[in-house]
Amino acid sequence: MQTVNIDLGNRSYPIHIGSGLIDQQGLLASHVRDRAMVVTNETIAPLYLDKTLAALGNVPSSSVILKDGESFKNLDELNHIFSALLNENFDRSCTLIALGGGVIGDMTGYAAASYQRGVDFIQLPTTLLSQVDSSVGGKTGVNHALGKNMIGAFHQPVAVIADMDTLATLDERELRAGLAEVIKYGFIIDSDFFSWLEDNMDALLSRDPAATGEAVRRSCEIKARVVEADEREHGMRALLNLGHTFGHAIEAAMGYGTWLHGEAVSAGIAMALDTSVRLGLIDEAIRTRGLRLLERAGLPIRAPSQMTPEVFLKYMARDKKVSAGAVRLILLDGIGRSHVSADFDHSALHATLEHFSGQESARG
Amino acid sequence: MQTVNIDLGNRSYPIHIGSGLIDQQGLLASHVRDRAMVVTNETIAPLYLDKTLAALGNVPSSSVILKDGESFKNLDELNHIFSALLNENFDRSCTLIALGGGVIGDMTGYAAASYQRGVDFIQLPTTLLSQVDSSVGGKTGVNHALGKNMIGAFHQPVAVIADMDTLATLDERELRAGLAEVIKYGFIIDSDFFSWLEDNMDALLSRDPAATGEAVRRSCEIKARVVEADEREHGMRALLNLGHTFGHAIEAAMGYGTWLHGEAVSAGIAMALDTSVRLGLIDEAIRTRGLRLLERAGLPIRAPSQMTPEVFLKYMARDKKVSAGAVRLILLDGIGRSHVSADFDHSALHATLEHFSGQESARG
Repeated sequence: MQTVNIDLGNRSYPIHIGSGLIDQQGLLASHVRDRAMVVTNETIAPLYLDKTLAALGNVPSSSVILKDGESFKNLDELNHIFSALLNENFDRSCTLIALGGGVIGDMTGYAAASYQRGVDFIQLPTTLLSQVDSSVGGKTGVNHALGKNMIGAFHQPVAVIADMDTLATLDERELRAGLAEVIKYGFIIDSDFFSWLEDNMDALLSRDPAATGEAVRRSCEIKARVVEADEREHGMRALLNLGHTFGHAIEAAMGYGTWLHGEAVSAGIAMALDTSVRLGLIDEAIRTRGLRLLERAGLPIRAPSQMTPEVFLKYMARDKKVSAGAVRLILLDGIGRSHVSADFDHSALHATLEHFSGQESARG
Repeated sequence: MQTVNIDLGNRSYPIHIGSGLIDQQGLLASHVRDRAMVVTNETIAPLYLDKTLAALGNVPSSSVILKDGESFKNLDELNHIFSALLNENFDRSCTLIALGGGVIGDMTGYAAASYQRGVDFIQLPTTLLSQVDSSVGGKTGVNHALGKNMIGAFHQPVAVIADMDTLATLDERELRAGLAEVIKYGFIIDSDFFSWLEDNMDALLSRDPAATGEAVRRSCEIKARVVEADEREHGMRALLNLGHTFGHAIEAAMGYGTWLHGEAVSAGIAMALDTSVRLGLIDEAIRTRGLRLLERAGLPIRAPSQMTPEVFLKYMARDKKVSAGAVRLILLDGIGRSHVSADFDHSALHATLEHFSGQESARG
């Protein structure tokens, strides 16, 4: 087991990474104050719920099983968590445990932020995406019919336990979607990690535990350093959103769940690369190298054919990264170098939107 | 205009108290960063919404009008605020303005805490209760069918503007309910203020603006000092809950809105006085003096006849003040002196519950 610590003063916490961690006696229970409520979904419950409850040993525990999928990440489904807690008289000293992927983690975290104005929670992420991204950093929330993650809170977990063994049961498409966020870390801030990913992509796709453990550890370390520097996303943390302004528009316009988050982010990174080339920030060789790694991971580098420039702009205007009406983009200055900007030549953005419009069908 | 400042580091804010403040040119607008969304209800909108929008001058503003009443303080109604914000593409730099009583303030504050993980909000309280209590201190939230204020956040406003002129349109019963919280401040911490209230109760009941302004100022000063010392209710802030453990049980058991919050708190204070007498903490003369002031304010000092000890205990077990299963009570040591305790002789509590059981009908 390796541990990456997130240093946020009195909100600091460890990320434990390794194999067999759900089963490891005492590890999970050591982070619970009093009583535990395990929140999971219909897909994950048959696989890991009994193990998780067994690992809690003598800790008084209950569980609530939600429907599976991004389309259930809403206030109505969230209310089931509150009902379960209230029906069993859980008080302020309880601990929620998020057992599942990003949807479960985001909802459980927001439920923990809101229940009695804030209780503890532990992230037990079972997908690559949630292990490297959503379980770390304290962003929690649910979707609104008019926008993704529009309702939520910053609420840090008391611990993250990332068990590599859970990746064995992960759907192939979900694994690839998770790699999009892993690759993103290389793009924005760490060219050595990007090269390491180029060297180890085959091992990652075959789920070699040593390779996935290393990818999760390095991703979490990068995210930890960024979140420590900027917990509430006033500056540097925005870099983590590379490809997300475009990606969120794709997810929302297509209907949540049609494109996986990581798939939309991958297409979004391809678009950010395109805009960066048009602005003269990077040359064609950098773009080609970037696209190749995304393609090797089996990820899309084109937008869905329904995405016209008008549709992109409509949904991008609703994105949280839009500040005071101005679209802010994460732009690349090279492999491992990036910056956030609202002050760029918008004709480049519009050219990118035109270029990616209907591209999938044109090339498909 | 008088101003009480709440000193909470980078979450500090002013409470402006006086007459004609809604109309005062520039005051409200000075606390808005960018765009404003006024949140109010069907009762308050015809009285003060136009004035409020006019006071915003050149600030781009919209409004959303909710249904009136505690029974609409829930996640469904909250979602209307999010829909209004998203329909008009409000971004992270917007400011919500809570124009109304405690329900509007709590819901608007929680919407502000949650919208895009946190935006600014201003409290414009129009009831005595919200001016002296709920608008100050950052507690926000909504009710769940199984418990009051069970879902929420600590989120401080950027300013509170308490306009005494709004009390002119306040329902008589609401005015008296607000006085329960004013009297509470005297009980828990300030015997001079308690005496001042004994001397000025007639002026307060006749809504003399000088008297109400003074009562609001002194209440806010007490609450400010308590919240500064203990923002997240780990200790001293619990004193503000005098009468609330009993009161919340009454509100929940009777159905929210049947008894006003202040009425339930008044009966709860009478019960806390009773338990304190039984524990030998105060003598009969103190109790009599306390009950007399509540009665002069036209407030109930008996529980509703439906409240058996079993019903009280069922709802008290769900109260947020219950920590790790133990009922914590605010007990009185005199007028202006109180403490929180989970370590008291529970037979005194049970005797109080028995004494107040069916009391209203027995004496009525």
